[in-house]
Amino acid sequence: MTTQATTPTPPPTSPSGGAAPDASVDPVWWGWGAAAEHHPLPAAVHDLLALLGIPTRPSPPVALADITLPPVRLPGQVLDELRAVVGAAQVRDDREARIRHCRGRSTVDLLRLRSGDASDAPDAVVAPLDHDQVLAVLGICSRHRVVVVPFGGGTSVVGGLTPRLPSGQAPDGTPRRPGVIALDLHRLDRLLRVDQLSGTAVLGAGLRGPAAEALLAEHGLTLGHVPQSWEYATIGGFAATRSSGQASAGYGRFDQLVTGLRLATPVGTWQPGRGPASAAGPDLRQLALGSEGAFGVITEVTARVRPAPARRRYEGWRVTDLATGLDLLRELAQRDLLPTVLRLSDELETAAGLANAVTAGTDTTAGTDTTAGVAAGAAAGGGSGGVDGSAGGCYLVGGYEGNEDEVTGRAAEVRAVLLGAGAHPLGEDVGQGWAAGRFHAPYLRDALLDEGIFAETLETAAYWAAIPTLYAAVRAAVTGAIESDGSPAVVLCHVSHVYPAGASLYFTVVCAEGPDPISRWDRAKRAAGDAIMANGGTITHHHAVGTDHRPWMSAEVGEVGVAVLRAVKTALDPAGILNPGVLVPPLSE
Amino acid sequence: MTTQATTPTPPPTSPSGGAAPDASVDPVWWGWGAAAEHHPLPAAVHDLLALLGIPTRPSPPVALADITLPPVRLPGQVLDELRAVVGAAQVRDDREARIRHCRGRSTVDLLRLRSGDASDAPDAVVAPLDHDQVLAVLGICSRHRVVVVPFGGGTSVVGGLTPRLPSGQAPDGTPRRPGVIALDLHRLDRLLRVDQLSGTAVLGAGLRGPAAEALLAEHGLTLGHVPQSWEYATIGGFAATRSSGQASAGYGRFDQLVTGLRLATPVGTWQPGRGPASAAGPDLRQLALGSEGAFGVITEVTARVRPAPARRRYEGWRVTDLATGLDLLRELAQRDLLPTVLRLSDELETAAGLANAVTAGTDTTAGTDTTAGVAAGAAAGGGSGGVDGSAGGCYLVGGYEGNEDEVTGRAAEVRAVLLGAGAHPLGEDVGQGWAAGRFHAPYLRDALLDEGIFAETLETAAYWAAIPTLYAAVRAAVTGAIESDGSPAVVLCHVSHVYPAGASLYFTVVCAEGPDPISRWDRAKRAAGDAIMANGGTITHHHAVGTDHRPWMSAEVGEVGVAVLRAVKTALDPAGILNPGVLVPPLSE
Repeated sequence: MTTQATTPTPPPTSPSGGAAPDASVDPVWWGWGAAAEHHPLPAAVHDLLALLGIPTRPSPPVALADITLPPVRLPGQVLDELRAVVGAAQVRDDREARIRHCRGRSTVDLLRLRSGDASDAPDAVVAPLDHDQVLAVLGICSRHRVVVVPFGGGTSVVGGLTPRLPSGQAPDGTPRRPGVIALDLHRLDRLLRVDQLSGTAVLGAGLRGPAAEALLAEHGLTLGHVPQSWEYATIGGFAATRSSGQASAGYGRFDQLVTGLRLATPVGTWQPGRGPASAAGPDLRQLALGSEGAFGVITEVTARVRPAPARRRYEGWRVTDLATGLDLLRELAQRDLLPTVLRLSDELETAAGLANAVTAGTDTTAGTDTTAGVAAGAAAGGGSGGVDGSAGGCYLVGGYEGNEDEVTGRAAEVRAVLLGAGAHPLGEDVGQGWAAGRFHAPYLRDALLDEGIFAETLETAAYWAAIPTLYAAVRAAVTGAIESDGSPAVVLCHVSHVYPAGASLYFTVVCAEGPDPISRWDRAKRAAGDAIMANGGTITHHHAVGTDHRPWMSAEVGEVGVAVLRAVKTALDPAGILNPGVLVPPLSE
Repeated sequence: MTTQATTPTPPPTSPSGGAAPDASVDPVWWGWGAAAEHHPLPAAVHDLLALLGIPTRPSPPVALADITLPPVRLPGQVLDELRAVVGAAQVRDDREARIRHCRGRSTVDLLRLRSGDASDAPDAVVAPLDHDQVLAVLGICSRHRVVVVPFGGGTSVVGGLTPRLPSGQAPDGTPRRPGVIALDLHRLDRLLRVDQLSGTAVLGAGLRGPAAEALLAEHGLTLGHVPQSWEYATIGGFAATRSSGQASAGYGRFDQLVTGLRLATPVGTWQPGRGPASAAGPDLRQLALGSEGAFGVITEVTARVRPAPARRRYEGWRVTDLATGLDLLRELAQRDLLPTVLRLSDELETAAGLANAVTAGTDTTAGTDTTAGVAAGAAAGGGSGGVDGSAGGCYLVGGYEGNEDEVTGRAAEVRAVLLGAGAHPLGEDVGQGWAAGRFHAPYLRDALLDEGIFAETLETAAYWAAIPTLYAAVRAAVTGAIESDGSPAVVLCHVSHVYPAGASLYFTVVCAEGPDPISRWDRAKRAAGDAIMANGGTITHHHAVGTDHRPWMSAEVGEVGVAVLRAVKTALDPAGILNPGVLVPPLSE
């Protein structure tokens, strides 16, 4: 009943059942995903932005050759030791490799890179083959005090790939920056074991979403974990950042799917999790999940898998307003009647989504996890009456996956609740439209950046009782911070993850870049984070801490919680080489 | 929507819908529960045990006055400081208080106490009123290096209340045992907040199961957490030991219900958990859950609550054999079709349960979480053909709780699966019989001990693929270890907790006490633990680590896992006063 499964990766399949973009292609260095998926911003969106007073300006990225890179600071001896472990070809310090592993994919990361700033690039990129090679690399780096940045899909949007480097001194007393390697895990790409009876699979940490699903599909199985970054993010990244996934209502968050992990740490191998449940002390799996490369390098993940769904059905609905929609989501969660996917856009995002469909001529996108429809949303938010968003209300998408009976049965149960609350069915086309566009938003962000428009997201979660005030407070804080210099901002929101006790809120923010977009966003982000903490939210529901959320970690987990994280970090990484300053606030903060 | 709820505790209600024993009465010092619940072992059971060659002999406990107690070793200054914090009446060092707080309720604990050995008794019992008093007590004890044993219901069956005392020296160099206090949390007995909208409640850690349910019932709510120890165990104990509860299939384990905790630690207050879900680093709630008083003292728990069920229905079924039953349980779990309660007895426990009903004249007890039916089980296991266990097969109990529609709907779904697999319905009487007897087993154990019969339980969990070999290996190990001196053993088993990826196994062991029952059990327990670890099980699924399971902790969580636990312990309890040696293996082990 346990089979070894090591066949090569077949072409990826899409969780929406159709063809997926070819995620085996390297993403573009200046933005998201494959070059072929990029298109210019539609002219109609230009017009709408102009109506809102959000000026566009051509802002192409610099040429690759014009990017400034710091010199490689790793001693030759270290490079030689690393080559001896992973092979010479798997230690790269060429320009392109370094630039491709410089930071993650937050909008600020992209702005820096597009402007030619690769000052955070690693000195070398090291690609181990397996767990034992990772252990050996950590040994070398611990001895030489070389910083290690675990690199999966490179899709962090919270500065998770930009550690704060410890200061050091050269023998002559001058400050010295330590060497940094990006530990690229893409070669840990095997489906190591399948246990059909127990419904579990052991997956290599470097498997991207499509490759993992393709390997599982050969066994008739699925993880069902589909975050917006699915095309490029990896199994190890899902675990390290507590990814929630667009289908969390049905399949659970990734941290709920994981039954075991294997990590390489500087002090040895750590394998938390011996089975489905235990009372043998604290659940150490939940300490490794969310550890963001600061405690060790996740090399393998044992996760629950399910039969691949025979049927997928996505439906759109309209409810009268956000408050009605929130009540519905809460009722479904508390009555254990959740669909597989459940999303609710606020009034403005609803208008933006529909407006985008009208202006951009695409299938629409209610509750897209992103910036999709954002430019048009700006227009709708500004009150331009020409878009169909005038129908008002809030879009809700319910997705159902399973066998025919399960899909039909649950959809009928949910339908009864929705109709009982006065929701209006919009049919499967609207739902399928969401599914078809579920990965598009980051590409649209690149098109906006090309035109000098800043778009970014932030997210939180809270108990149901706190949601309305939290929603209002974050909207007000972000809008106020951006508009303080007279430049209009558009802030959209949706709920994409619901629990019996509460829900997430996902905000999309769009504004002109202006003369200093990074400072402007920094101001907005700080205002949003403070509003979140003051109103009962968590600083991040599914994007992780990285360096961007570290300033709020003491408020989030308390001083005692920070002391616990520091103690674990010190026990596992005594030399402090693993992603320093990510996740765990330094003592000086 | 958030209400303050501080009304006094009304009479307890039973989760089976009937009247519960009065758990506000102090338990007897020599055994389990209230004196009124105890009855002599039925004569028929005597006869059956004789048939099996398991000799009985009257073995009453010594008189309270004959118990040997060590002198109180706490300096008067420490007692005075403690009295200044909690009040003079709440610091007790009288005989009865010390004996009542000596160890927990494992069979070995009871054997020691019944023989007059209270050598592990604390020097004093301190009962703080609230979180701040707990903090202050920890401060005093840290300064004076006084060991603190957090005490909730006192129902640990794994040595969780018997710390390993650090060795010390008096000024003259002679060894000195440190002082020990039991920190009795029964005064932390308030329902602190109810959030009806979010479906959460904040409960004082010292609330026993019935009192917590009674307070929640005033709001129309329930926790739904009902371990066998429910009558006496506390909210804080459920959290500290990762209690699973007999209704885990429907309500979830206690660690799944908890959304937040408040702990007093020697370094300050720790409050992990800000809402329903977060990606702000590791889930520190899961580090506090299962911390067994070694990291801090849990003073408040925020947990999910649900509407109190309008309807409860329990049904009995018979399946042909254990393998068929396991397949059914797995199918129900993996198809998300679980009842609220789901239990499956192996063939021998099935025969024992029915035999017990016949011989003892009570409603029966398929899958009782315990020693119920154990004496008769011994007979059935020995092949005495006169009992109705000859019908063969395995009992399965399915319990359904909720509103009328939910109960009817889920029961019908499960019924279809069970009938499809050839299961035979036994009706609600058998199910209700289980529910009526769900808390009885520990009382029966006392009756067996009175007759010189040893009865104890142990439990584990594993992935489904490992369950058959694990089951066989543990049975063989325990039976072999006990019967190695020629004395027959009866080993029964049931599955009481199921998950998509695996299930628990709960073994009940009965044998004659013989000349040295503690050594005999020690041998059996060691054999069982080794068999569990060698066959993919966890050393404990819901009884916690305590001191009894500590020898397997390195195998369970690995050396790196142990290092993590030690690091957390040192960060939170630098003086090492909190339950030393419980949960975390000492460096010398």
